Amino acid sequence: MNAELISVGSELLLGQIVNTNAAFLSQELALLGVNVFYQTTVGDNGKRLTAALELANSRSDLVIITGGLGPTKDDLTKETVASFVSRKLVHHEESLHNIESYFLKRNRPMSENNRKQALVIEGSHVLLNYHGMAPGMIVTNNDTKIVMLPGPPQEMKPMFTNEFVPQLAKMMGEQTSITSRVLRFFGIGESQLETDLLDLIEAQTNPTIAPLANEGEVTLRLTVKHADPTEQKRLLDETEDQVTKRVGQYLYGYGDTSLMEQLFLQLREKHCTIATAESFTGGKFSGMLTSFSGSSAIYRGGFVSYATDVKEKVLGVSNEVIRKYGVISPQCAIEMAKRAKEQCVSDIAISFTGVAGPSKQEGKEPGTIFIGVAGLTPEPLYYELNLAGNRKAVTDRAIKYGCFYLLKEMKRWNMKE
Amino acid sequence: MNAELISVGSELLLGQIVNTNAAFLSQELALLGVNVFYQTTVGDNGKRLTAALELANSRSDLVIITGGLGPTKDDLTKETVASFVSRKLVHHEESLHNIESYFLKRNRPMSENNRKQALVIEGSHVLLNYHGMAPGMIVTNNDTKIVMLPGPPQEMKPMFTNEFVPQLAKMMGEQTSITSRVLRFFGIGESQLETDLLDLIEAQTNPTIAPLANEGEVTLRLTVKHADPTEQKRLLDETEDQVTKRVGQYLYGYGDTSLMEQLFLQLREKHCTIATAESFTGGKFSGMLTSFSGSSAIYRGGFVSYATDVKEKVLGVSNEVIRKYGVISPQCAIEMAKRAKEQCVSDIAISFTGVAGPSKQEGKEPGTIFIGVAGLTPEPLYYELNLAGNRKAVTDRAIKYGCFYLLKEMKRWNMKE
Repeated sequence: MNAELISVGSELLLGQIVNTNAAFLSQELALLGVNVFYQTTVGDNGKRLTAALELANSRSDLVIITGGLGPTKDDLTKETVASFVSRKLVHHEESLHNIESYFLKRNRPMSENNRKQALVIEGSHVLLNYHGMAPGMIVTNNDTKIVMLPGPPQEMKPMFTNEFVPQLAKMMGEQTSITSRVLRFFGIGESQLETDLLDLIEAQTNPTIAPLANEGEVTLRLTVKHADPTEQKRLLDETEDQVTKRVGQYLYGYGDTSLMEQLFLQLREKHCTIATAESFTGGKFSGMLTSFSGSSAIYRGGFVSYATDVKEKVLGVSNEVIRKYGVISPQCAIEMAKRAKEQCVSDIAISFTGVAGPSKQEGKEPGTIFIGVAGLTPEPLYYELNLAGNRKAVTDRAIKYGCFYLLKEMKRWNMKE
Repeated sequence: MNAELISVGSELLLGQIVNTNAAFLSQELALLGVNVFYQTTVGDNGKRLTAALELANSRSDLVIITGGLGPTKDDLTKETVASFVSRKLVHHEESLHNIESYFLKRNRPMSENNRKQALVIEGSHVLLNYHGMAPGMIVTNNDTKIVMLPGPPQEMKPMFTNEFVPQLAKMMGEQTSITSRVLRFFGIGESQLETDLLDLIEAQTNPTIAPLANEGEVTLRLTVKHADPTEQKRLLDETEDQVTKRVGQYLYGYGDTSLMEQLFLQLREKHCTIATAESFTGGKFSGMLTSFSGSSAIYRGGFVSYATDVKEKVLGVSNEVIRKYGVISPQCAIEMAKRAKEQCVSDIAISFTGVAGPSKQEGKEPGTIFIGVAGLTPEPLYYELNLAGNRKAVTDRAIKYGCFYLLKEMKRWNMKE
């Protein structure tokens, strides 16, 4: 099945927003085995949308249009498609009800033009909008399916996944449903993961296994097709088992959960409080940890001990350690974590010291990092890293490693309990 | 002049990367008065690129193609365009030299396929690449100009701005050159800024004045057309004067400089050291300040005094202040800043305390923020904010306000010196 995307919106042609919808849809379709050969963007202009539609209809089995379904005069996707396939617009009761309750919930009066959003193309398959007002539609024209989805990503994405994908499975001639499970890995590169799983990835057809790398993390998406949900789960579990037997030590979570969120959730679940002592990370670790609401239950506080004398005089790292080993050392990392734990009275503490770059420090190369952890084991731990990349890359990766090490140790801790 | 964009790259069709080039180019072209009517994305496929090119050539005066100029077999933009306009590829000495020195600088051997990058279409206007290897090109075909730019944004953007825009001015039949100056504002909304400047914006044609809002900041882009650089500068200065007479108190910088970067630059210029005491911002302020290389010259260190007893026992806010006024108070903000300045031995210090949300704290609504500043004035200062939005929005905006207040006070400080 060959697909193409048409994005409608003058704000895209003016460059006021970046077209993330096209990337999302392309990625999802690729994983479902649908080839996307063209992405086109046109403004809120009936003539040019019709031209794009004619061309797309002539060469693709599936045309997905996003945007232009709203209540204003600019929005004319529905009208343009209706006229292209020579059909009328008719009221859709369920969508009107949805729109009315949307306004009721927000205690706002509904203006008349919002009724327009409940109009759908006659004979179309309506995709209900559970995250906004405008319904989506699937229209069949000759051998081509034309799909209309709303433009706002927070409406488009759930409609695509929950309402359209089941229909797509049917179109693809399968009396089955498609589900996927995303496994998240850290500390292993995409190519290594692929090498370790190559025979599985190649042999496996249901579920399929698709790796994807993004900002130092790798995900594996397992996609299963089966009519029976119990059987879907069994197949996914079985494949996950095969995967974790080989690379389980790098698995840290599922779905959209970031390393930091996973750490936050683990700390909260264990009622474990944490303190921080950050040098080159400058407070970024604690800044990310406190981005989750409810973080005050687990985060006590910390130090940004940037200057060497602040490490000594404020945080309390001993002068001897600094003189003898320097601040870029395992000893300093360990002392930083111990002092943060003591001063902030927490269960555990993590510290970061190292060279973010671009210059050397204490004769050490940029990317030389020490992470200290106090309170998780009888004796404090440290980890040494040598990371490549610029200042930002080094800092961001060090923070991820910090989360990963804590999660790994807490898992071990767990098993002992 | 009507333009359209063609983005080439299978990674775009697979959704592995988001097409930020299209947004950048559309925005820049709009500001230069060029209408973009279509954006098309095709894979690394000669046949489909030719189809897109034919269509674009038939309907647009200007076709800008990005991507597919690299050294690998996949890259075939140049070859496809050459064949479309029936011309040969020829070696471009200056580009070959550029590529060779690229490898020399990095001390890496140059593989043979990199030579291919020095091939250009015969008779084309070559755009030199100062940030990578592949040169860009402008080819005239009938009445249409076909422009090829490299795909990586860090190469494409400077080539577009510095090499292509001057050529575009010529194409637009103007014996002039186009330059713009971006003024950055904070603390004023886009609509207020527009209202305050409406008569100027409407009356002004050279330079033009275009406002744009982004993440709580507003920019004004002044775009001037004139053959003489001295006259360009005079016109820009004149318009900037008119603008700052009305809204100068909100102007904080120029070009791409963020509020935090401007603060960093100001502190460095004044040899002024800073310490931090952060509560709900959790270390995000210091994390951002230390993201600039060279920050160790101005940043001493700080506290993330998240829990109330950490504010008291570690940072040293007096128990009396906390008991009497609570931690969400001007008094606490001031004490936090004073203690951070003392403990970290800095010239100035800034503190953040408040309610990030979603829950109330000490009976105060989410968005209630106090920022304390010590060391800039004989007596410490505080600022009170009541911000709308979710946890992230409140935190991010509070940090921007912190930068803005410091910059404003430093300006005043400046004038006194």
